[in-house]
Amino acid sequence: MLRTHTCGELRSTHIGQSVTLCGWVAKVRDKGGMIWLDLRDRYGITQLILEEGKASAASIEAARKAGREFVLKATGTVIERLAKNAKMLTGDIEIRIESIEILNPAKIPPFLIEDETDGGDELRMKYRYLDLRREPVRQNLLLRHNVSKETRNYLDSLNFIDVETPVLIKSTPEGARDFIVPSRMNPGQFYALPQSPQTFKQLLMVSGFDRYFQIVKCFRDEDLRADRQPEFTQIDCEMSFVTREDILEVFGGLTKHLFKKIKGIDLPEIKRMSYDDAMKYYGCDKPDIRFDMKFVELTDLAQGKGFPVFDSAELVVGIVAEKCAGYTRKEVDELTDFVKRPQVGAKGMVYVRYNEDGTLKSSVDKFYTEEQLKEWAVRFGAKPGDLMLILSGVADKTRAQLNNLRLEMGTRLGLRDKDKYEVLWVLDFPLLEYNEDEKRWFAMHHPFTSPGDIEAFMKYDATSPSLGSIYANAYDLVINGVEVGGGSIRIHDKTVQNKMFEVLGFTQEEAQKQFGFLLEAFEYGAPPHGGIAFGFDRLCSLFGGQESIRDFIAFPKNTSGRDVMIDSPSEVNPKQLEELSVAVAIKK
Amino acid sequence: MLRTHTCGELRSTHIGQSVTLCGWVAKVRDKGGMIWLDLRDRYGITQLILEEGKASAASIEAARKAGREFVLKATGTVIERLAKNAKMLTGDIEIRIESIEILNPAKIPPFLIEDETDGGDELRMKYRYLDLRREPVRQNLLLRHNVSKETRNYLDSLNFIDVETPVLIKSTPEGARDFIVPSRMNPGQFYALPQSPQTFKQLLMVSGFDRYFQIVKCFRDEDLRADRQPEFTQIDCEMSFVTREDILEVFGGLTKHLFKKIKGIDLPEIKRMSYDDAMKYYGCDKPDIRFDMKFVELTDLAQGKGFPVFDSAELVVGIVAEKCAGYTRKEVDELTDFVKRPQVGAKGMVYVRYNEDGTLKSSVDKFYTEEQLKEWAVRFGAKPGDLMLILSGVADKTRAQLNNLRLEMGTRLGLRDKDKYEVLWVLDFPLLEYNEDEKRWFAMHHPFTSPGDIEAFMKYDATSPSLGSIYANAYDLVINGVEVGGGSIRIHDKTVQNKMFEVLGFTQEEAQKQFGFLLEAFEYGAPPHGGIAFGFDRLCSLFGGQESIRDFIAFPKNTSGRDVMIDSPSEVNPKQLEELSVAVAIKK
Repeated sequence: MLRTHTCGELRSTHIGQSVTLCGWVAKVRDKGGMIWLDLRDRYGITQLILEEGKASAASIEAARKAGREFVLKATGTVIERLAKNAKMLTGDIEIRIESIEILNPAKIPPFLIEDETDGGDELRMKYRYLDLRREPVRQNLLLRHNVSKETRNYLDSLNFIDVETPVLIKSTPEGARDFIVPSRMNPGQFYALPQSPQTFKQLLMVSGFDRYFQIVKCFRDEDLRADRQPEFTQIDCEMSFVTREDILEVFGGLTKHLFKKIKGIDLPEIKRMSYDDAMKYYGCDKPDIRFDMKFVELTDLAQGKGFPVFDSAELVVGIVAEKCAGYTRKEVDELTDFVKRPQVGAKGMVYVRYNEDGTLKSSVDKFYTEEQLKEWAVRFGAKPGDLMLILSGVADKTRAQLNNLRLEMGTRLGLRDKDKYEVLWVLDFPLLEYNEDEKRWFAMHHPFTSPGDIEAFMKYDATSPSLGSIYANAYDLVINGVEVGGGSIRIHDKTVQNKMFEVLGFTQEEAQKQFGFLLEAFEYGAPPHGGIAFGFDRLCSLFGGQESIRDFIAFPKNTSGRDVMIDSPSEVNPKQLEELSVAVAIKK
Repeated sequence: MLRTHTCGELRSTHIGQSVTLCGWVAKVRDKGGMIWLDLRDRYGITQLILEEGKASAASIEAARKAGREFVLKATGTVIERLAKNAKMLTGDIEIRIESIEILNPAKIPPFLIEDETDGGDELRMKYRYLDLRREPVRQNLLLRHNVSKETRNYLDSLNFIDVETPVLIKSTPEGARDFIVPSRMNPGQFYALPQSPQTFKQLLMVSGFDRYFQIVKCFRDEDLRADRQPEFTQIDCEMSFVTREDILEVFGGLTKHLFKKIKGIDLPEIKRMSYDDAMKYYGCDKPDIRFDMKFVELTDLAQGKGFPVFDSAELVVGIVAEKCAGYTRKEVDELTDFVKRPQVGAKGMVYVRYNEDGTLKSSVDKFYTEEQLKEWAVRFGAKPGDLMLILSGVADKTRAQLNNLRLEMGTRLGLRDKDKYEVLWVLDFPLLEYNEDEKRWFAMHHPFTSPGDIEAFMKYDATSPSLGSIYANAYDLVINGVEVGGGSIRIHDKTVQNKMFEVLGFTQEEAQKQFGFLLEAFEYGAPPHGGIAFGFDRLCSLFGGQESIRDFIAFPKNTSGRDVMIDSPSEVNPKQLEELSVAVAIKK
């Protein structure tokens, strides 16, 4: 090694030793006879000191030339620091330099390489290799390494085998968002990149692999919301001879293991909630239960009193914001504006102040007596000093709107502490959703999910509305309102799988063409099995206490799917296309 | 779990316990009143026994119905086996069954699920999920899991960070064998799949990551030889502030660690050989040094004696096959036929028998006296009883031919034991190779490899033949004649990198367009760095003692790049192509 030590390891026990460090110049202070340099590497920062007369003239000259981000090799003696710096791990010592060599000069970087940078998003992404020099970003990727390592340790200890499944697979018409790859050796034919290794992991179960995992890249060519990436990473797992309870046990265990190892948190037993309750009480299938503020339904109390908005509503439902009765008019108007934003979509909001003096004051006093409002307050479990916020309309939409309002209130009231973690299994999802536009059923998870009640499922056909009442043997892991993982017990019986394809509107030929290999595999002894996949990028960002996954990915793409650093995607050589038997065909 | 134990764990200490096992029927023997079933899972095989009268009638019926590969759940009591089977880990016990449930029936598989199968290659690949049930194939994938795990353990202990680099990157015209991926959001533009994460890992060094590794899929769209795959896995590593010696130390250490953990072998210090010596003594840059049989040059002794074949040759060179003087005429003819095969390409072979009685007898007695042949024998270091085999012609080609003959002799003489391992670093490769057809230089490794002598390199331009004499600061790891890993110290100086692009014939614009981001990164403080990549599939097959990498990959592709199990690649929906702004364009 060009160095004897890293820039993070020298302590007062090293005093007197001759050492050589390599790293980047973080700071230079030149006071004439003395020059101080902060030298930085991945492991820390060490202060170098050069004294005119003691260091060689060439070293003094090199130190004077060295600007920020120059790469240096510096040799000297560890000495005690006069002004110790308790904030630095190496703050007790400094290096009295005998010689310095500039290994590589550096231009002034386009933004500050510091914890708080002046670089905007685009600039940081263009120079991602410089952004990655910043401590918080590096810490994110170190955290990612550790989450990966601890995941492997846990799963390996439970006999899971890491099996790599192929990246060049088969496109399915269902997978409209597949990335595809022309095959040079098979003109006119294409591979697809996997949206998940779903069928392969199921085949591994048919193979008797019993317990499989993989930390694996997956791909989805869809319009990217701010926090999606065309390539993302999953912790992908599957087990044989299990019931749902076994999966919850093993992967609840993984979650606890990670919290313990990564965050030092002893997680209590993971709570469970049915999908129906999640929708009823939180208006969403991934409730943030760091705070309570459950939905309370008022429809029966609120209707028939002459208020046309409520009378015409399918659902009147609200939440209590504790100790918010004192909200100013302006604050309440802000909330009304919030729910009326197009992203939320409510027409308006009704509020009831439960004043400290016990009186009640609402925005609908014209229609309701104080006595009636009191009944609402009882239903809400509200206390004097609380504020009730009420929305109404079509049930589904109103719940979704109130979910937005609840989260907004949670944020405003500081109830969503990023250092507090609430983990939840959401269970008993519906198996199928009916799409009114396309007049057909869609799988809520995917077509390999086992119905909870297989017997009932087999009795219905695609025209039965009862299909909507069948639960899936599925589960989602939700942390702080974010869906981190999801999976299901799978269908392992060919007849059930065929029935599923049938109710989803596949013809037998289509099912055979796309999933023939899986259906055939089911004929050769498929064991009962189930699994789960965790969004690895998301999991890391949660552990890092951040909203965005981008800074937990070394080289992310922007919302147009572009890597602005390497300038990709880009045009390719026409000769290359010709060899691949494809041509560009841009529609006017 | 549907089971209490696996099929591999019950021993005599479990006798008397009530257990439930799940697995696949490996064998059934029905002797009327008694039925024996062998139940198999990933962990082993356990014998079940059903006695008419003791097991329920339904269970007896189920057992009678159960054919090979049926999936069963069986409950019973562990009892001592009368006829113990020492070959089975569970051979001391059997399970007296109380109840059996058929979890899934199975059709008769298209080939035997046994260590030696009757399934041909194509059939095994089509039903790969059944092939994976076979013990040897499963063991290969377990070995792969372990090699991966131990690689991670070793590198993690040395502070290497696992960083995922992108799969959707940029195509470079140099990378004629890139797989490309049309971008829906950027019509007319394409991503490429990486042939290696080379530039990204170098950027991570610029970022100060210091030590990086990744076990990563790479892609190459080239005509597949029997043992290549379009997608393959690398152990990819890079380090900063290192010299070549550091890399050899750390990754020699990895190699030793893996041999110890996977094979239980304490590897001695890894030998080293220069590229020049490898070519001179073995005629190839990845010599199999499990046996000696070095090349011996005879040109000076053999020429000028009137044998036109030798007189017109650039090189006369041979090997000694110890104790083979007694080879029959037929055996010698076989060797001559071997070197004359088009894959080897020699015109003929000269042999000299050094008989046990000390006489010498050759195929060129017409031209050489016994005295002269004696001189050859001395040069060869041959002893009575040995056979000398000699080829001649253009130096390079003759060495390559003799390499083939040497390996063939090694095999014939049983000197290439697959359980013996000889590991070798090959060093000091030429930096550049001149291509006479294209009249330009090519990088022997890749254009980021540092010259050994940078000062000399900078002095030459593309027209200097002296470029051919510059060594690369590169290294290959060779195990048993197979190249398992390779890497180099990289260029970290923009001027040197630009010079490299220049001698490789890039215009400044081309270099800028393709590698501008890397050249720019070098301006912001790039540390000296170097790295290595191991062929992970190949490494696993070596540890598994097998020639082919295919059975160490869960779902491999055939030599046409097809996955015959899922039938991929395949045609895609024209609508999908339209959305991607591409069209099929097959040349007539």
